[in-house]
Amino acid sequence: MTTGFLALNAGSSSLKVALFPAEGDTALLTGQAERIGPEGRMVLKDGTGAELTLPPGDLSSHEGALSMVIGTVKQHFPGLRMGAVGHRVVHGGLDYVQPVVVTDAVLAKLRMLEPFAPLHQPHNIAGIRAAMAAFPDVPQIACFDTAFHRGQPFVNDTFAIPHRYYEAGVRRYGFHGLSYEYVTGELRRLAPHLMEGRVVVAHLGNGASMCAIHRGRSVASSMGFSALDGLPMGTRCGQIDPGVLLYMLDREGLNTAQIRQILYNESGLLGLSGGLSNDMRTLEAADSPEAHRAIDYFVFRVQRELGAMAAVMGGIDALVFCGGIGENSRSVRRRICERLGWMGVEIDHGRNAESATVLSSEFSRTTVMIINTHEELVIARAARAAVGISVS
Amino acid sequence: MTTGFLALNAGSSSLKVALFPAEGDTALLTGQAERIGPEGRMVLKDGTGAELTLPPGDLSSHEGALSMVIGTVKQHFPGLRMGAVGHRVVHGGLDYVQPVVVTDAVLAKLRMLEPFAPLHQPHNIAGIRAAMAAFPDVPQIACFDTAFHRGQPFVNDTFAIPHRYYEAGVRRYGFHGLSYEYVTGELRRLAPHLMEGRVVVAHLGNGASMCAIHRGRSVASSMGFSALDGLPMGTRCGQIDPGVLLYMLDREGLNTAQIRQILYNESGLLGLSGGLSNDMRTLEAADSPEAHRAIDYFVFRVQRELGAMAAVMGGIDALVFCGGIGENSRSVRRRICERLGWMGVEIDHGRNAESATVLSSEFSRTTVMIINTHEELVIARAARAAVGISVS
Repeated sequence: MTTGFLALNAGSSSLKVALFPAEGDTALLTGQAERIGPEGRMVLKDGTGAELTLPPGDLSSHEGALSMVIGTVKQHFPGLRMGAVGHRVVHGGLDYVQPVVVTDAVLAKLRMLEPFAPLHQPHNIAGIRAAMAAFPDVPQIACFDTAFHRGQPFVNDTFAIPHRYYEAGVRRYGFHGLSYEYVTGELRRLAPHLMEGRVVVAHLGNGASMCAIHRGRSVASSMGFSALDGLPMGTRCGQIDPGVLLYMLDREGLNTAQIRQILYNESGLLGLSGGLSNDMRTLEAADSPEAHRAIDYFVFRVQRELGAMAAVMGGIDALVFCGGIGENSRSVRRRICERLGWMGVEIDHGRNAESATVLSSEFSRTTVMIINTHEELVIARAARAAVGISVS
Repeated sequence: MTTGFLALNAGSSSLKVALFPAEGDTALLTGQAERIGPEGRMVLKDGTGAELTLPPGDLSSHEGALSMVIGTVKQHFPGLRMGAVGHRVVHGGLDYVQPVVVTDAVLAKLRMLEPFAPLHQPHNIAGIRAAMAAFPDVPQIACFDTAFHRGQPFVNDTFAIPHRYYEAGVRRYGFHGLSYEYVTGELRRLAPHLMEGRVVVAHLGNGASMCAIHRGRSVASSMGFSALDGLPMGTRCGQIDPGVLLYMLDREGLNTAQIRQILYNESGLLGLSGGLSNDMRTLEAADSPEAHRAIDYFVFRVQRELGAMAAVMGGIDALVFCGGIGENSRSVRRRICERLGWMGVEIDHGRNAESATVLSSEFSRTTVMIINTHEELVIARAARAAVGISVS
């Protein structure tokens, strides 16, 4: 009988899933639900990439989406024994520096972190509860997006506000940790000498952040306390002057919910492009002034952050792109690297056009790479490890 | 009869003044009122540095402080003809890219900018009105802290929020422009070849910001829309995740006034040091863990911003320190430069200990300097220029 390890990655309106066997990196099933709500839709594929028929279900909620996933798994893999279910959990607070088997006590702690990630954490917890109900005797493993960044030096962890906030947990947690963990692992495999040095990983997708990794440890992230800070994203603002929020409150009379709606859902590429799109592919195809200003700003902020992270580490030895934009947009990668000669970056345009693994030229002082990230595999490995199957 | 040019620099709780003759950089009178309010105090000195006796007066308001200044000027310089009065005005919005003679129409425009700088602009306007009343036939010249930065590229001027905000004037204005103008002028005089290149000026004082100057033009500033953003300051937070403000609103139930009070008055060095001090001198003397963490963070953020600005310009040719901390703290300068070898910075510790004009060693690829800034002189020069006396 096959043993399966299910990886669940619940976003604010999405649910990514992958089912892995007990060994190997090839999934038995992958897919995702998008736009969970009235217009929700789901696609699941088997290991060959063939689309699977779905049981009838309700995509208006994460719970509904998850029960469709479970129904599909039970229908298409009737003999499968579920070994463990791994969950991406956005926030692990100060306590969790590695994956943990979920208990009632853990769930209670995760609920206490909801105020720190109000748009994600409740869905993550709902996903865990639903999986517990579906697989009552199977270990549920929580894998944290913050864990990779714990242990950053104080100066990178704090804000310059009254110190009681730091003590209350208002810190620069950083996110996308599962992605950084995957990329770090791959980099260690592909180019172990680089992992001894100073690496910046740019996870550029609909959510986007950058991480400075010195000798394999995260020392800085562009994301801070929430998933809003740092780079501009599809619909999130990235770095912004706090005075703008005071202006929205005072002058526009907006309430917190309205400001949150603007900063999380109407900003970033979407806001800069005057509502054109939150999707880099659409903006690149549009070739309009509105699209250009959004792309220009995105490139500019990545460059700016790269300089800041180099300053934190005293230079960089490697720059790694990942995420939907980082892995696929030749033009964004080229533009980011174009003006970085001063920090030793020179890309080979042919390699970049092919999206090769190594983009840098033979003369580049800094190695530039693409590593296709795979958060679900990191989750599945953690799930395997929790039941005693080696991670490697 | 001597002609005088009065420079007024009103902060949120201070008023700096200097009276200059029609020619030369030597002031006839300098001084300041501090802690304007119930504990207000004022010191004015003549050109030899001797303290002047003050007329009785009221330091509970900016108007009161200004009338004490005017009384002192009239008492000690009985034959003086006032040529023009120059005012530092924090916000010039989008329109003002250079000093302007104040008319009713200008005043109306400046008042419309109050929401953009609520803690400073009203005092600046009050200062202009009071000077108009005291010197009714004398031109009043407004000199803007934002003017130096206008003309920055779009990517540095905007935030990634809905584009209507940009059109409504929510931009990265940048401040400390009068200081940057003075330093730029001095640098042009001292080392004209550097002004053809890429310069970062670090204005580090109780207020602090950095400016990237490419071929003599500001291309980036660490301060943005308000005077809160960028570097940590004496009591201001500098860069902060917008999610922290949402947390303060949602979880702590704070109102806008309370958040403003925290971010403007209880944060920065004061907040990080657990309330110890907003003054770098006090923190350096304290030598406690609380003091260290505040100084460490300050140094870290300056380094980070320097890397970001180098990325904006494609490297740097010179780094210039100014402001109270930049001009006086050997230890902060040394620590900032210590880990910047990767970007060509090497300081000579002897020169740094002497606070020499040029701090960099002969082998440094990047020139590091101190230029003592002088905002009042810039204001006085603008006042002279407005009545036809050459600026040079």
